[in-house]
Amino acid sequence: FWTSEQAGRSIRERVPPLLTDLYQFTMAYAYWRAGRHQEHAVFELFFRDIPFGGGFSLFAGLHDCLLFLRSFRFTDEDVEFLRSVMPPATDPAFFQFLRCLDCSGVTLHSVPEGTVVFARVPLMEVAGPLAVVQLLETSLLCLVNYASLVCTNAARFRLAAGPKRKLLEMGLRRAQGPDGGLTASRYTHIGGFDLTSNVQAGFLFGIPVAGTMAHSYVTSFTSLEEVWPQTLVPVNRDHNPVDIISLTKGWLSRVCELLGAEPGKIHEGELAAFLSYAIAYPQNFLPVIDSYSVACSGLLNFCAVALVLFELGYRPVGVRLDSGDLCRQSLTVRHVFRLCSEHFSIPDFDSLIIVGTNNISEESMTELNSKENEINVVGIGTHLVTCTKQPSLGCVYKLVEVRGRPRMKISEDPEKSTVPGRKAVYRLIDAEGHPFLDVVCLAVESPPKAGLPLSCYPLGCNSTTLSVTPAQVTCLRQEVFSKGQVTQSLCNAAETRAKVQSSLQTLHPRHKRLQEPDSYTVALSEKLHSMVKEIQKRSGNDTNFLLEN
Amino acid sequence: FWTSEQAGRSIRERVPPLLTDLYQFTMAYAYWRAGRHQEHAVFELFFRDIPFGGGFSLFAGLHDCLLFLRSFRFTDEDVEFLRSVMPPATDPAFFQFLRCLDCSGVTLHSVPEGTVVFARVPLMEVAGPLAVVQLLETSLLCLVNYASLVCTNAARFRLAAGPKRKLLEMGLRRAQGPDGGLTASRYTHIGGFDLTSNVQAGFLFGIPVAGTMAHSYVTSFTSLEEVWPQTLVPVNRDHNPVDIISLTKGWLSRVCELLGAEPGKIHEGELAAFLSYAIAYPQNFLPVIDSYSVACSGLLNFCAVALVLFELGYRPVGVRLDSGDLCRQSLTVRHVFRLCSEHFSIPDFDSLIIVGTNNISEESMTELNSKENEINVVGIGTHLVTCTKQPSLGCVYKLVEVRGRPRMKISEDPEKSTVPGRKAVYRLIDAEGHPFLDVVCLAVESPPKAGLPLSCYPLGCNSTTLSVTPAQVTCLRQEVFSKGQVTQSLCNAAETRAKVQSSLQTLHPRHKRLQEPDSYTVALSEKLHSMVKEIQKRSGNDTNFLLEN
Repeated sequence: FWTSEQAGRSIRERVPPLLTDLYQFTMAYAYWRAGRHQEHAVFELFFRDIPFGGGFSLFAGLHDCLLFLRSFRFTDEDVEFLRSVMPPATDPAFFQFLRCLDCSGVTLHSVPEGTVVFARVPLMEVAGPLAVVQLLETSLLCLVNYASLVCTNAARFRLAAGPKRKLLEMGLRRAQGPDGGLTASRYTHIGGFDLTSNVQAGFLFGIPVAGTMAHSYVTSFTSLEEVWPQTLVPVNRDHNPVDIISLTKGWLSRVCELLGAEPGKIHEGELAAFLSYAIAYPQNFLPVIDSYSVACSGLLNFCAVALVLFELGYRPVGVRLDSGDLCRQSLTVRHVFRLCSEHFSIPDFDSLIIVGTNNISEESMTELNSKENEINVVGIGTHLVTCTKQPSLGCVYKLVEVRGRPRMKISEDPEKSTVPGRKAVYRLIDAEGHPFLDVVCLAVESPPKAGLPLSCYPLGCNSTTLSVTPAQVTCLRQEVFSKGQVTQSLCNAAETRAKVQSSLQTLHPRHKRLQEPDSYTVALSEKLHSMVKEIQKRSGNDTNFLLEN
Repeated sequence: FWTSEQAGRSIRERVPPLLTDLYQFTMAYAYWRAGRHQEHAVFELFFRDIPFGGGFSLFAGLHDCLLFLRSFRFTDEDVEFLRSVMPPATDPAFFQFLRCLDCSGVTLHSVPEGTVVFARVPLMEVAGPLAVVQLLETSLLCLVNYASLVCTNAARFRLAAGPKRKLLEMGLRRAQGPDGGLTASRYTHIGGFDLTSNVQAGFLFGIPVAGTMAHSYVTSFTSLEEVWPQTLVPVNRDHNPVDIISLTKGWLSRVCELLGAEPGKIHEGELAAFLSYAIAYPQNFLPVIDSYSVACSGLLNFCAVALVLFELGYRPVGVRLDSGDLCRQSLTVRHVFRLCSEHFSIPDFDSLIIVGTNNISEESMTELNSKENEINVVGIGTHLVTCTKQPSLGCVYKLVEVRGRPRMKISEDPEKSTVPGRKAVYRLIDAEGHPFLDVVCLAVESPPKAGLPLSCYPLGCNSTTLSVTPAQVTCLRQEVFSKGQVTQSLCNAAETRAKVQSSLQTLHPRHKRLQEPDSYTVALSEKLHSMVKEIQKRSGNDTNFLLEN
């Protein structure tokens, strides 16, 4: 269903070129005024710390960045607004300049979307005219930061849940407004979720949508008189419509007898709600069974209605549990399903699905996975979309080269210093096929070679060298945008989702542990390390960090 | 600048009727199939806990809800998509029904946007045809939840900062995607922020925008040769352009001499960056001065350029500090400003503004406010827009009446039980003008009267009565939408922002304390309390929670 053009239109509306910080425009003006706006500049986008205390992150948001770059243009209305908010001294010719601006001079090299990535590796390199690449900063950060964060969060939930359980994203009502919710649905699907409750996300991105009923539906019914029609045609349509009320009452008695339950505790309104839903959707019957009491009412009502459906040749789907101890309740529910299956000789009754939804966090997901339970599908909202454990990723966008000359920010905090110059990034793979080190080199260096030893300087190890011999070497980034055009085919959500799983597949389990993972090594090549040292040395003596090379 | 129509167009694009959970449609279908879709139903929207452990919340998002309701209509494309994702058994006539649906039958009563509100008070009452008011759930929750949360967070930052300091929102790059950022800008302004960095938010909502330069601007310069033009015309244009390089060098020497600084430690690139910016914007000079070292370079360069501007008749604005101990540095900066002011006889030098931005949280804002400092403007991003302390508000939407009969969800967890029936909410004000109690009554009851004692049941106090005599009584909610029309004039962001301040103004300081505030009392009227008790009693004996009244 999804087409990139559709999503393009939608995302274009979301990311006008004014959706950025004002200082990008005041800086662009100062460059323009000094005649520097066309100088060739290179920025890098990266984060300094892996989110959630984890061992890996995922890189996401590239698709949106490409659509943004491709359509980056100011309308007359945009420019008129800028004229009204920029200082009155701004030369009117600057607004003419803006009106004609686009990204035809911009080249973007990027890690592919959906790749496992690590802290301090430059994920994107944005090169082009100084004023333009400066203007892009906030929008690119905004598009990458939350997408990568929530995608990584989803992948962690997926790891916590194990590969078999289906995961449903249902966070729309807790997201940062309507479009925060859409972004969450898209990138949690890419991160490993199977389904979303968000219909618009299904519409825009082709994500499978799911959902049946809320408690309000159940509590809106009070008596069996509200059930209408009161008949159902068996799946084999040769038969006449059947009086479903009396049929249900009969099955309910048998269920109560089988389970030794008190019919007096059963809520008639709940039964009416289930029956009405089953009549509307006899092949899609999956009610929420804890509006009153699972054991005393909901489960019994479900079994009675499910037995009616089975008798008429339909296949009910299962139940949803939305409160309490999901694991314990799921065992009870499955036990009752087995009893019904055996007692009434309906093999399929045993394999009905159980959906669990109850404010699931990564911790409770992990705990759930470690305990005996019978939950087939888990629905997650708040903790998934708001990333409660760490609600923001600190991607930054740093200048590394101007007019072919490396630039470096030397901070008193070494963590905040940047690595200067134009680079290439290689991922080294060991003999078992696991990536074990990312090495950041100068762009002009020849790449590391498989089977040959390589000496490098791991970041954060204070100039200790490390010698490694990769079994394979891959170049981590590729050109994805040039001369105003996207130069790689745009991946849709399903393709990127597959990329995430294959990228995670090759990562060694020691880096995938959710708690206390082994950290992955990121290193500088010897040449890049020497350049950094030389610039640092000069900066000690000199007021000018420029390195002529 | 802002017009409601503009925002309407923009928000309409953000909140299509498909931006909801799938189960709203499957429930709507089941109602339709049972012939119940036109039954008159009433839902209430409220939250159960005040966010951030605070003593109050603000209610926001109403404006967006009204625009959403007004334009709630399905396109052919929407309906075709729904047909593709709803179960195949769905009767095609239902899609015809959807195609004709709108909110002409919906009535919304709401607390005014920007009002101080408390937990468990029904903020909105949505009444209308059962299928329609059910369909609205997720979208209304999505529009209210984050707006109210981030508005409350902004108000807390405002309380922490004190009334005088200017607050700048700059969270776009850390928000949940582009539109999460826009929502944040709008509602933090309403909550008490003065300025935003987000240009598009200025465009759409008329919020004042601010910003000058980033570190990348400073580090992009390396030498004074890059400054262009190298002249500046004095503000009194009768004079000829002045050679600004030599003028600056002269002032820099005098500043170094005055402060006993080493000229050898000054970064020429930083000076070039400041000069270029000052030439571009001589009346808007506010550089970031900590790219290298505030004391050894940035502050000296700033003073030199500022002195040039003063000499030529301009008025520089101030400096930004973006790292380290902001309070301590601001004292140093102000001290130097004073020295320059006295030594060079420039009174205005003393009152230049100091902007502080450095990952400010509510705690660091409180600490900053309690320490001696000279910061005039604080910029806040991540902790403001992501609401780190609690990244979601748990607003819920509960059914309270169907066909004129009260509905109640009785949960094993008393906190999760709902209060049935159609209600009115009154705010009781004491003799000092402070609100002290919100009482929730049956809609049919006569309102409490000023000066007359009232007996009521505070929530969470297990049926203890309380007798109070209000000095004034106000009705908290009003009709804001009826018959497809907005029935109150839509407030723009500035008006709602004023409402927030006036509502907070009347709240007693004991409820406004950020830490361990006194909790505000919310109570049920005697009649409503009796109804709840009666329903609870019946539910013990009976399987049917229906109350005929």
